[in-house]
Amino acid sequence: MIPTLEWTREGVRFLDQTKLPLEETYVLATSYQQVADVITTMVVRGAPAIGVSAAMGVALGVKQSRAAIISDLAAEFDIICNTLAATRPTAVNLFWAIARMRNHFSTLAAQPTATRESISEALIREAQIMYDEDIAACRTMGAHGADLLPESGGVLTHCNAGALATCGYGTALGVIRAAVERGHGIHVYADETRPFLQGARLTAWELMHDNIPTTVLCDNMAASLMRAGKIKAVVVGADRIAANGDVANKIGTYSVAILAKEHGIPFYVAAPWSTIDLATPTGGAIPIEQRPEREVTHHAGKQLTPHGVSIENPAFDVTPAKYVTAIITERGVLRAPYAESLAELEAAAATR
Amino acid sequence: MIPTLEWTREGVRFLDQTKLPLEETYVLATSYQQVADVITTMVVRGAPAIGVSAAMGVALGVKQSRAAIISDLAAEFDIICNTLAATRPTAVNLFWAIARMRNHFSTLAAQPTATRESISEALIREAQIMYDEDIAACRTMGAHGADLLPESGGVLTHCNAGALATCGYGTALGVIRAAVERGHGIHVYADETRPFLQGARLTAWELMHDNIPTTVLCDNMAASLMRAGKIKAVVVGADRIAANGDVANKIGTYSVAILAKEHGIPFYVAAPWSTIDLATPTGGAIPIEQRPEREVTHHAGKQLTPHGVSIENPAFDVTPAKYVTAIITERGVLRAPYAESLAELEAAAATR
Repeated sequence: MIPTLEWTREGVRFLDQTKLPLEETYVLATSYQQVADVITTMVVRGAPAIGVSAAMGVALGVKQSRAAIISDLAAEFDIICNTLAATRPTAVNLFWAIARMRNHFSTLAAQPTATRESISEALIREAQIMYDEDIAACRTMGAHGADLLPESGGVLTHCNAGALATCGYGTALGVIRAAVERGHGIHVYADETRPFLQGARLTAWELMHDNIPTTVLCDNMAASLMRAGKIKAVVVGADRIAANGDVANKIGTYSVAILAKEHGIPFYVAAPWSTIDLATPTGGAIPIEQRPEREVTHHAGKQLTPHGVSIENPAFDVTPAKYVTAIITERGVLRAPYAESLAELEAAAATR
Repeated sequence: MIPTLEWTREGVRFLDQTKLPLEETYVLATSYQQVADVITTMVVRGAPAIGVSAAMGVALGVKQSRAAIISDLAAEFDIICNTLAATRPTAVNLFWAIARMRNHFSTLAAQPTATRESISEALIREAQIMYDEDIAACRTMGAHGADLLPESGGVLTHCNAGALATCGYGTALGVIRAAVERGHGIHVYADETRPFLQGARLTAWELMHDNIPTTVLCDNMAASLMRAGKIKAVVVGADRIAANGDVANKIGTYSVAILAKEHGIPFYVAAPWSTIDLATPTGGAIPIEQRPEREVTHHAGKQLTPHGVSIENPAFDVTPAKYVTAIITERGVLRAPYAESLAELEAAAATR
C-alpha cells in the first residue's frame, strides 16, 4: 500500500510528493504549523488527502497543547483550525474536515468530565476514523464506477486522483483500479499536468507501482489521441463540486472535458461526498487558488521563461456540469440534472 | 531585427533556439551535414525557417563540393538534397525549398557554359532570394491579417510562429505585429507549448524584445482564459496545409482549435504559400513526426517521470479544416470551403 499519510506517535508522516517519482522520502510534521506548511507546499495534495491531513493537524495541535483549562484549549483550538483552513482555498474537503473536527471538539468540550487529554485522544481517534472512511469511500467509488469504464482500451486521466491524493486507493484511479481488478484491460493515458506535473510524476509512479499499463502524454496531446480513437473514457477527481454539478478540479480538467465532448467520449468525475459542497450553488462561486509564478517559470531550479514575463498560474478550473457524463461517489453514481440527483442523495443519507 | 538565420561567407549562422531565452548564442554550420543537424536538433525550427535553412544548406553543400565535372556535382547534389530532406518529415516547406533548389540546379546544370562555380553562386543567390521572399511574405500576411485581430484584447497563440520560425517578422506573430503597428491594443497569451516550450521560451522572448505585452500560460490553462472572456482571437502558424484546408501544426493546436470553437472565438492560421501542399488531399495523409521521449521525460537534464514509463511525443497534430475560421497567406485571406479557395488562388497565381 502507498503510504500517502499516516498518524504516528511522533506526528503526521507524509510521503513527500514534491520529491516523487525519483525519491521516496518522508516528512514528519511534529506540529500543526508543520502540517499546514506541508499542505501549502504540496508535500501532500489531492482534495481527500488534504482533508484528512488537516484533521490530523488539528488532532496534533490539540495533543501538543499545554492549556490548563478547557476554555483556553478552545481558544487555542480556534487558532489551530484557522491556521489549517488558510492553507489552500479550493478543495472543500479541507473545510469539511476542519468543520467536522470543530463539531466533535464542541461536543467533547461541552461534557463536564472533559479533560484536555480525553479531548485529545478523542480527536486523534476521529482523525483516524476519517482516514479509514476515506479509504472505504474510495473502494466503494471503485465498486460503483468500475463498470462505467470500457472492457478494454484507453482511459485518460488528468492530474493525480489516486492513492497519493487520498488516504489510499484513490478516487479516479480507484475506479480504474477496481475496473482492472474486475479484469478490464485498461491502458491509462496520464496527462502530465503542468505545471506541477502530478500526472507525469505521481499518477505514472503509482500506476507503475501497481503494474497498470500507463502512458504519459503532454496535456496538449490528449485531443489527437482522442481523434485517433485511443481514448474510450475520461475519469478525473474533483476538488469541489457545486450544488448544480459544476466541478472544480486541477487546471486543465475543463479543457479535457470539452475535448471529450467533441469526440463523443464519456467524461466521469469520481469524488467522495466530502467533496460535494451543496452550500455553493454553482462553479462560479468556487474560489480558485492562484499559485506562485515560479511553478510555471522554473523547473528543478532552472528558469524556462524570459526574465520578467507575465505568468498565469491558476491551480484549478471549473468544468460546467453539462460536460459531466456522471459523478461517481461512495453513495452511488449521479447523472444530470445534478441539482436534483445531488439533493436527492443528500436527503436520502440524512434520513438513513 | 531578430537574427534567426543568416548566410555568411563562413557558412550558415543560426541563433541557437535551444538555448533561448536565457542565452543568446549562435551556431555556425560550415557544412550541409551541420545544417541538417541544426534542423534535426531544433537549433532552428519553424516551417518557413526550416525551408530557407535547407535551401542554404544545399547552397553550402554545392559551394564546398570539389566535383571535377558537372555529372559528379549532380550526383553529390542528390546526396546533399536527400540528407537535408531526411531531417524532419512534417513541415512541407522543407521539401518545397529543396525541390526549388533541385529545379534551379537542373536548369543551371543544363546550360553548356555551366561551371561548378557559376552553379554555386547562382544557388547561393537563390537561397538568399528565398530568404528575402520569406520576410516579404510574412509582412504581406501581416498586412492581410492584421484587421482580423481585435482592436483591443487578448490574442492566444500556440508554439512560436514568429520571427524565430521564419527569416523575420513571423507568420502568426507577423499578423500580431502588423495589428500592433496599426494601433491595436493586443495582449498576447502565449501557450508555453510542451514539451519543447517554444511558447514560454521563444514567443515570450521575441515579443518582449518588441515590447508587445505577453503572458505565458500552461497549455492546459487556455480553456479557462477563454471562458473568462480574456481571449478574443487565436492565431497560429502551420507546418503543412492539405488541399482541403486541414492544418498540421505544433502538437496542441488541434486542442486549441476545439476550445476556440466551443467558446465562439475565431481561429486563424497564418502561413506562406510554401506551407500549402495541394498534393496532399487531406490532413490524414500528412506524416506526423514522433520526437524523442526524452523531450517529455526530462527537462534541463533532470528526469520528470518514473524510470521506464511509456511516453507519447508526436510533434504535430492535424486540425480539420472545419475548425479554421480563415487561412492568412501572402496571396490573401482564404475562407471555407478551402478546397475551392486554395485551388482558386493557386490557379490565379499560375496565370499571373
